[in-house]
Amino acid sequence: MNKNDLDTPCLFLELELFERNLQLLRDRAATAGKALRPHAKTHKCSQIAKRQLACGNCVGICAAKVSEALVLAQAGLQSILITSPVTSPAKISLLRQCSAFTRECIVVVDNYANALELNEAAGEFHFSQPVLLDLDPEMGRTGVSFADAPALARKISTLPNLSLRGIQCYAGQLQHLPNAEQRGQESQRLMQKAAKVFRLLRAEGLPLEIFTGTGTGTIRFDFCIPELTDIQAGSYCVMDAEYAAVENPEHLLFEQFCPALSLATTVISNNHSDHVTVDAGLKALYYTPAAPPRVIRQGLPLPGWRYEWFGDEHGALFFPGEKPALGERIELCLPHCDPTINLHDCIYVTDQGRLLDRWDIDLRGKMF
Amino acid sequence: MNKNDLDTPCLFLELELFERNLQLLRDRAATAGKALRPHAKTHKCSQIAKRQLACGNCVGICAAKVSEALVLAQAGLQSILITSPVTSPAKISLLRQCSAFTRECIVVVDNYANALELNEAAGEFHFSQPVLLDLDPEMGRTGVSFADAPALARKISTLPNLSLRGIQCYAGQLQHLPNAEQRGQESQRLMQKAAKVFRLLRAEGLPLEIFTGTGTGTIRFDFCIPELTDIQAGSYCVMDAEYAAVENPEHLLFEQFCPALSLATTVISNNHSDHVTVDAGLKALYYTPAAPPRVIRQGLPLPGWRYEWFGDEHGALFFPGEKPALGERIELCLPHCDPTINLHDCIYVTDQGRLLDRWDIDLRGKMF
Repeated sequence: MNKNDLDTPCLFLELELFERNLQLLRDRAATAGKALRPHAKTHKCSQIAKRQLACGNCVGICAAKVSEALVLAQAGLQSILITSPVTSPAKISLLRQCSAFTRECIVVVDNYANALELNEAAGEFHFSQPVLLDLDPEMGRTGVSFADAPALARKISTLPNLSLRGIQCYAGQLQHLPNAEQRGQESQRLMQKAAKVFRLLRAEGLPLEIFTGTGTGTIRFDFCIPELTDIQAGSYCVMDAEYAAVENPEHLLFEQFCPALSLATTVISNNHSDHVTVDAGLKALYYTPAAPPRVIRQGLPLPGWRYEWFGDEHGALFFPGEKPALGERIELCLPHCDPTINLHDCIYVTDQGRLLDRWDIDLRGKMF
Repeated sequence: MNKNDLDTPCLFLELELFERNLQLLRDRAATAGKALRPHAKTHKCSQIAKRQLACGNCVGICAAKVSEALVLAQAGLQSILITSPVTSPAKISLLRQCSAFTRECIVVVDNYANALELNEAAGEFHFSQPVLLDLDPEMGRTGVSFADAPALARKISTLPNLSLRGIQCYAGQLQHLPNAEQRGQESQRLMQKAAKVFRLLRAEGLPLEIFTGTGTGTIRFDFCIPELTDIQAGSYCVMDAEYAAVENPEHLLFEQFCPALSLATTVISNNHSDHVTVDAGLKALYYTPAAPPRVIRQGLPLPGWRYEWFGDEHGALFFPGEKPALGERIELCLPHCDPTINLHDCIYVTDQGRLLDRWDIDLRGKMF
């Protein structure tokens, strides 16, 4: 079966490009003496998570939410880090279920009251809950400030049912900064502050072994931080137009990672001379003003072609030459990969257009 | 069970408000001598579609895509109109399945080549496919121009296996225009053009019986078009902050329709003095710069409170007085209802906070 036999809109993953992305980061990290802990929030797919682990040099997998972690745990993933605080009784109950399926299900903490809740829940089950201290990279989303971090770490380390294993620092605000020099300097400044907290706490005798963080946009710079143990990158495996726009829009590359995932869409109306209407709108391609999807053919952008969202159900396609026919199929490089994948139920895996497999996006919609 | 017993982020539908919205439009339409054909693209929920029909004065239900129509058909809905052209062989095959389950599955057409395909497919099964001519309300998305419409209608009417039942004209571009007078004038101008086509074709002897169109933002104005037979409104049943912003942001009302649907979210980090972080981000609340969600309590906006998207997984909540505690639950009026509902798997139905039911969003992700 060929990819053109499937109805649109749908997502295609070109397996060779995907595996090349995995191998590229694995080798770069190994050279830098770092391990990987890839972030599943990007792909929401336990099959992809397993392939990331199988590729090597991984210490585990990340999930943004505990409900994602539970699906990964049930799919057999053995070491999971939940990168957002798990705070409500219902979420802590899910965390307990994750722990039952896994060798370790680590969770970040940025608040002592939350640490006490986790400690109490673990105590009920005579169980030691591994935690990381979440450091705020001056972004204000989650995490404790660098200044307050040591005191919070000391308090957490006294709780009998928690095992403080290390720190997390993820500067999400830097990943798409267009100026690479600024992105690198700012990332190193923040990660050095986190490293200082890490050194201080270890010098005090806390047995911290994990310093995890960084994303696809800052990997190269953060490799230079000696204390950093592992890399939480997510987008690198499938990539998107938003990253490509940062560096190399002509080839859709970012740090040599290439778009392995694309969306196929079909012309459903063509009564105008300057554009046609396709069957993928806001519900198939996540709207982001930062980077519209790119029209591609065989992995490369088609010069002069442009996609614009045309409401919830449709897109407008502008073309430089002959008007596409009704029924013509168009391929797009995704705008922002994470929330676009989250709109779909599955990814079709291809080898140069030949259909190999269908992977469920089994973490889709898991937002608890 | 109370709504506060459920984990967040999740959607709540207050049944009384929802039913009041249904009754309001039913009665208004009846007074104007129009029928309803509510649009299921908004709610993606066959349970809601059934309640719309049960409320009365409905001639059928609309779907944006044939894959949505199939779920509605399998759920027992008997008259379905697909409001986008159905063009590819795979989609036409789904249309055939829909017809097997329903009394009628009508589809719009804006292109003669597509009409030929539909005619051929219907012929293979010795079946008459009901179609509507889709008129372009000078928006350029789908539809044939007013000028070209009569000629296309005449050609379609000669095809033996198609039954041309009427016309559709839906001006999606007008629905949220802030100036009501302009919205009304522009809508009437376009609908009068469509009515002229309708009259012309009927005068020529074509047995057209349906003129369907309009949306929640233009209902009141389009009631004045005598030829219009039925109303395709979608948002009116659950409403959102985008419509409320048009008219009455203080009470979140638009034409007396009120937000029946809300999203609950929980504070998961509160280390800052000016904001806290909640567990609903881009993957739980569709991002639209046009209208951020509104923070509400018991259906009314909380003055001085503000939600901002804080990435894919989180939101930032700004508050005027005392800082919300970790674990505190916050309720939001949805930004744009359609694509936000499409992110969720179910809607919890409540009666003043008491949990009554859980309805699957069974059309979610159906984008073919």
